Parts: sequence; C-alpha cells; structure tokens
Amino acid sequence: MLVHRLIERKRDGGRLDPSEWRDLVNAYTKGDVADYQMSAFLMACFLRGLDHEETAALTEAMLASGERLELASIGKPRIDKHSIGGVGDKVSLVLAPLIAVLGVAVPMVSGRGLGHTGGTLDKLESIPGMRTNLSLARARAQLEELGCVMMGQTTEIAPADRKLYALRDATATVESIPLIASSIMSKKLAEDLTGLVIDIKRGSGAFLTSFEQEVALANEMISLGDSHGCPVVALVTAMDRPLGRACGNALEVEEAIAALKGEGPDDLVEVTLALGAEMLVLAGVARDTDAARSDMRGALSSGQAANRFRQIIERQGGNPGVLDDPSLLPQAEACELYLAPRSGFVARVEPRAVGRGIIALGGGRSHMADTVDAAVGFVITVKPGDQVQSGEPMASIYARNKDGILAGRAALDVAITVADEAEPPLKLVSHRISRDGVETF
Amino acid sequence: MLVHRLIERKRDGGRLDPSEWRDLVNAYTKGDVADYQMSAFLMACFLRGLDHEETAALTEAMLASGERLELASIGKPRIDKHSIGGVGDKVSLVLAPLIAVLGVAVPMVSGRGLGHTGGTLDKLESIPGMRTNLSLARARAQLEELGCVMMGQTTEIAPADRKLYALRDATATVESIPLIASSIMSKKLAEDLTGLVIDIKRGSGAFLTSFEQEVALANEMISLGDSHGCPVVALVTAMDRPLGRACGNALEVEEAIAALKGEGPDDLVEVTLALGAEMLVLAGVARDTDAARSDMRGALSSGQAANRFRQIIERQGGNPGVLDDPSLLPQAEACELYLAPRSGFVARVEPRAVGRGIIALGGGRSHMADTVDAAVGFVITVKPGDQVQSGEPMASIYARNKDGILAGRAALDVAITVADEAEPPLKLVSHRISRDGVETF
Repeated sequence: MLVHRLIERKRDGGRLDPSEWRDLVNAYTKGDVADYQMSAFLMACFLRGLDHEETAALTEAMLASGERLELASIGKPRIDKHSIGGVGDKVSLVLAPLIAVLGVAVPMVSGRGLGHTGGTLDKLESIPGMRTNLSLARARAQLEELGCVMMGQTTEIAPADRKLYALRDATATVESIPLIASSIMSKKLAEDLTGLVIDIKRGSGAFLTSFEQEVALANEMISLGDSHGCPVVALVTAMDRPLGRACGNALEVEEAIAALKGEGPDDLVEVTLALGAEMLVLAGVARDTDAARSDMRGALSSGQAANRFRQIIERQGGNPGVLDDPSLLPQAEACELYLAPRSGFVARVEPRAVGRGIIALGGGRSHMADTVDAAVGFVITVKPGDQVQSGEPMASIYARNKDGILAGRAALDVAITVADEAEPPLKLVSHRISRDGVETF
Repeated sequence: MLVHRLIERKRDGGRLDPSEWRDLVNAYTKGDVADYQMSAFLMACFLRGLDHEETAALTEAMLASGERLELASIGKPRIDKHSIGGVGDKVSLVLAPLIAVLGVAVPMVSGRGLGHTGGTLDKLESIPGMRTNLSLARARAQLEELGCVMMGQTTEIAPADRKLYALRDATATVESIPLIASSIMSKKLAEDLTGLVIDIKRGSGAFLTSFEQEVALANEMISLGDSHGCPVVALVTAMDRPLGRACGNALEVEEAIAALKGEGPDDLVEVTLALGAEMLVLAGVARDTDAARSDMRGALSSGQAANRFRQIIERQGGNPGVLDDPSLLPQAEACELYLAPRSGFVARVEPRAVGRGIIALGGGRSHMADTVDAAVGFVITVKPGDQVQSGEPMASIYARNKDGILAGRAALDVAITVADEAEPPLKLVSHRISRDGVETF
C-alpha cells in the first residue's frame, strides 16, 4: 500500500476501496503510517467527504482493530444511548441504571469531555473511588450481574479510533459527519448491541450547525447500525441552553442522583424519559413509548433506579454513600450567587459560553491531556423565557478560590442575557429520526 | 498563536494575516508546531487555496527564515533561470556558464531530482569531485571571480522552505500553485536577483496539467518578483517528449558539454538560446533577443562558454578534464541498443515513462532519501514524428547490469510508441508570459 497515492486520490475527490481502508487503518494503528501523512489524509477526507461504502469500511476497520464484547449469551436485549455533545447533559447517569432495572442490558462505553462539552466519564469519576477503566471480562461479568456497566474506551476497544480521534482533535478534523459517525459506531458496535438510541443536540451549543447535518449524521449512523443488525433511532433535543441546572462534574452527579430519586429538573427528566422510551421499545420490553414512560416512572418512584446506581457505583469501587449524602462528592472551596443585573426576561443562556466558563474554572478540557477539577461549575436556576427581577439570584458559581469566582462571573456575564423580551427557546425534543424517516414532534 | 484555529480557518476557506503566516512558519521551523498539524494545514491550503497576499506573506516568511546573498556590490546584473520540472532538461548546465561569459552574474541555486523529473544538482555531482554544498561566503567569492556559481539550497537559504517541502513531498501536497510559487520564489529571492527567467514545462511530462495553471503559476511568480524588485519572465516550453537526447545524470552532463562546444541537439540549443535571450535582455546587456542570440552563438563558437564551465568545475573541486574526455564521467557497466519493434512513425516518447525508467535503473528518486546512480539512463535518438524502420536503433540503454537492461527495455516499451501515423508534437517554445501579459509564438 502506497500511502502517498491514497492521500493523493482522496485529495482529488476519489474514493478508497474497503480493502484500502482496512490496510490504511491497520498500518496507521501499527505505526507504519506517520501521523503527518494520516493528518493530511484526514484533512482531505474532511474537505472531500466519504461515501456510504467508505464510511462503512472505515467503521469496520476501526471496529476490527480491537476486541468486542460478546454478550449474546446474556439472554437480554442490549441497548445503549449515545449523545452528540452538550452542556449539562447528565442523562446517561440517570438512564443507564433506570433502563437496567427494566430488564435491558446497558453496556455503556463513554468518553471524556473536550472543549465546551462535558463527558460522562469525567462525571462518574467525580464519585470518590469510582473506577471506569474496566477490562472487557469484568464489564461482561458486571453486565450479567447488574444489567449495566459504565466504563471508558479501553485499549481493547477500537484502538484505531482512539489513535485517529486524538490526531483529529489536534488537527481540526473532528467536525466531519462520516468521521464522527464512524468513530462513534466503531465503539458502539464493539458493545455487541441489539439497538442504539442517539441524542443529537441542536442549537447554538451543539456540535453540528444545521438540521441538514443532524439528519445526515443520524442517517449515516442508522445505515451503519443496520448493516450490523443494530437498529438505530435518533432524537433531536435542544442545546440552545444547558440541560438541567447543574453544569460541572460533581454538581451534575448530584443532580443526576436527585433525578433518580424523582426530584430532577423537568427538562432533564423529560429528555431522559424520551430517550429511555425509545430504548425500551427498541429492546422489545415495552409495547410503546407510553407504556415505557409508565414503567420508567415506576422504577424511579419505587427507588429501584437509584438503588441500581448505588450497586453500580459500589461494584466499580466507588463510595455508594453519595446516593444519600451528596456532600461526599468533591466540594468547591468558594461559592457565590450570581444575580440578575437588571429586571426583564432571560433571553439567552448560551451553552458554549457556560462550557468555556467551566474550562476557565478548571472543570473542563481545552486539550485531551488536561486534568479536570470535579468540584467546580455552575448551577443555573433560570431558563430562557423566565422573568427576573434585578438582584434576584440566577445562578451559583462553584470555584477553587476568589479568582475562580471572578472567572465564573465573567463567563456568566457572557452566557446569560437579560433583555426586555425573550424569543421562545427550541422545543426540548423536536424530532425523531429512524430508518422510517424524520418525524417532527 | 493557536495552530488549531489557523488550521480550522484555512479548512473553512478563510485566510491568514501576514503576521499569522510569519508566526506559523517560524513556529514550524523551530519545531513548536508538529509535522502532523502542519501537514493538515498544508492539505487545507492545497484544497482551499491562498490569495495573492497570503502567497506573498508565506514567501516572505520562508525567505526571512534564512540568510540571503548580498550581491549589490558586485556591480553586475544578477539573473537566474528556474525550470518547473522536466525529463532530459540539462539547460541550466549550458546556460549558466554561457550567460556568465556575457557579463551577467548567475547565482544558481538548484535542487535534486524527485519522481520522474531530474535535478541539476544530481547532474553536477556526477562530475568527479564536484562540490555543490557551498557556503554563502564562498558562493559570493566565486560569483565575483567567475560570474557564476552552481550550488544546492544550503541550510542557510530558506530553511523553512526545506522543511515544508520535505513534508509536502511526503503528504501529497506538492502540486499547488501558491505553494509551488512561494517555495521557488523564497529560494530565488534569497539569491538577491535583478531578474529571473522561468521555464514552465507543458505537456504530458509536465508538473502542471493545463495551460491555465501554467499561466496562473507564472503570474503568481511575476507578482512575487515585482514586489521584490525582481522582474520575472516565463517561457512555456514543450515537455511532451524529453528535451535533447540524453536522460540520466552523467549522460546529460556529457550532452551539455557537447552543447557548450556548439554540438548540442537542436531542441536543447533552441530552448537554451530562448531562455538565455530573455536573461540577457532582462539584464540589460543585450538590446533585444536577436542581439542576445547572436552574442550567445559567439560565446559558444569561441569556446568561451565551455571554458567558463571548465573554470566553474575546477573552482568547485571537480575534475575539469571531463570537458575534453567525457569517459571521466561515471560509466555504466552494461549498454544495449533499443531497436524499433516495427516500421512506422514515432508517435510518442513519453517523458513520465522515461523518468520512471531512470528510477527503475537506479538513476532517479522515488523519495528524497534515495541515492542515485549517476551512470545509468537512456540516450533516445528519435523524436515524435520521426520515421523509423523495423530493427533500426531508437535509443541506447545504460544500466548497472543485465537486470537493469531488462528494466530499461521495459520502460522504453511503454515510453516509445511507433504507429502508422504521428500527431505533430507541441511547439518547442510556445508562449512568453511577463507582466505585460501572454504572448503566443
């Protein structure tokens, strides 16, 4: 294989055969293709695109680069949920134990936060003692026992994707629909799923910038899933404001625990139930989404969902006491209220600015190598459209020290706009995309 | 400077300011920007293009990365010639001493061959003892003494271009007009020229594939030269067949020496005189190209031009005896005639196939790190349009051994086509491009 010729061909708008994708990905993973050649190739892919067959071949090559869970013998449907970025999105923490209670295995492999978006893994690791670097053998055992595991992408799962993603992150080649779709699906298909629900974020805080792109990404993933016997359903949900109130790792765990106890903020609960209903219907354990919602409400109010999260934490080495006493989570040294500077309507709570604020506080990452402070963040108690009086609290800032409070305040000055009037925000759950097409709610 | 943002901006079709180009080039040259980031950036440049101001800023940044010759005190016009690739193109070897005889300083910085095209440096180094890695101080002294120096791009000249060119070579980002123009001009402007003549090759063996591209490249270089007080004139010459007969390093030196003695093949002499006439007119030492041609014919027939080449070789450590006895040049162990397989007309002598044949013989480079065997190559005595009889010699193959002869024969089987009829070849010197526009001959 001559890498130079493959770069040249993609550069000129041509395509690679499946065997060429496989050889290229294998050679890169082994170190036989230099990073500088692969990054030029990825930029050519970004600008020239990949067709369906190429995207499938890339996915296949990355999937084949590692091990897969083999879960057929568990005897249960295996369904996961994946979200395309977001701020304040702690849905996975609520959803995984909740769905596991209802007879579905949830082998959830999550990622870390990067840029303005948070990551489930960072949130989980804010629980004292909690381990997320589990072997596939251990993950399998826990799935049999508890119906749920919440872990990171090990070196066993799609190592080619790991290496390629790190390179894309450093070379501005992330936001490409075929590259995103193949990266996600190579990991998700390694989970041996019988179904997958995707949460595609929409609005100013989302990764993608147009509805056309969102539909294209959903369709690419639906097509990749179908060719592996894994039906995919996508919901489009609002990310023109953060989801829920808490933004920051430990703060979000605290809010997720409240939701598992039936005390979550309305928007978080609504998105969780909408995604969960799709999972339960895909699994065949609920006849329709109404029945699924009813089952989920029961599992929340009975305490079963919260209890399952307690068991998962304990099984993964974490302190299950956080379920009862959130003060066991990392606590910020400094805390201050953020007040409305004037009376009026909350016009915008800009997720990107909130995300950048979390980075400024030390709770997020500009680069994959950055470490995060789990304790810091914001709890923003207003939503776009709310009426506020001058001096009324709109948020709390949690920081390491006084300088952090100042940085947090500066971030919220940009993020939250109070004006004479407010446009209506985006519909919380606006579209459903499946192999049957796009449905608008 | 955040490299990621610059890659992103170029990727999305934006532009960099001159200060951003300078900072990026400096950081890359110092090793503060990784190769894998720069190669992604270069691919974005390749596919999105650079505007005039950006091309000028990149050229400026590469030029500023190194030292420049300072030649104003020599008191002579300083003119160089640069050729955009080609097979059998030994024009520089004839032209540099010839023009130096006529009162013009020729500070010729040349490159090595790569892919199907040869390089003046490799040809020069086939002369036993000849050194081309001269310091700028030594180059300057030789210019004062002999009016000509023929050397390689030292580490002192445009080191940023050296590093970037090696990266482009490995990542399929060479054939971009702004990147080619800035690379050439950053080196040529370091020669402190008062004028530059460009030989832009046209036809199947040329680097560029359309006349529009050739004109665009010429205009970019004219514009870059103008902003440094260095007028640029380009001639478009035929590369649908090799230039002259000899193709291969030592073989080409032998042919160049013959041309300096007035015994060169017609096409080589014609292209040399056409380019030389432009140099002499640019220098102001000839009132028009007819007068320039007459002066050059005089310098060739008087033996002055050959004698100057002898002095240059001697001054650069080479054996000047090669002027009288070409057998002092490296000699191939094996030599065989290549005969016409049928009677008819020579329809094509394909330069790319000839160039690849030289690589197959060991006399060219697929990669910059390859070493070359100076002795091997071809002498092709037929030209497109010639009538041949079956079994008549069309070429000689010079190789290391019998295997080389077979490889050379296979290459010529592809390169030379004999058919019932032949299309007329391209006009040898077809266009002149200057700041006054395009003139067709």
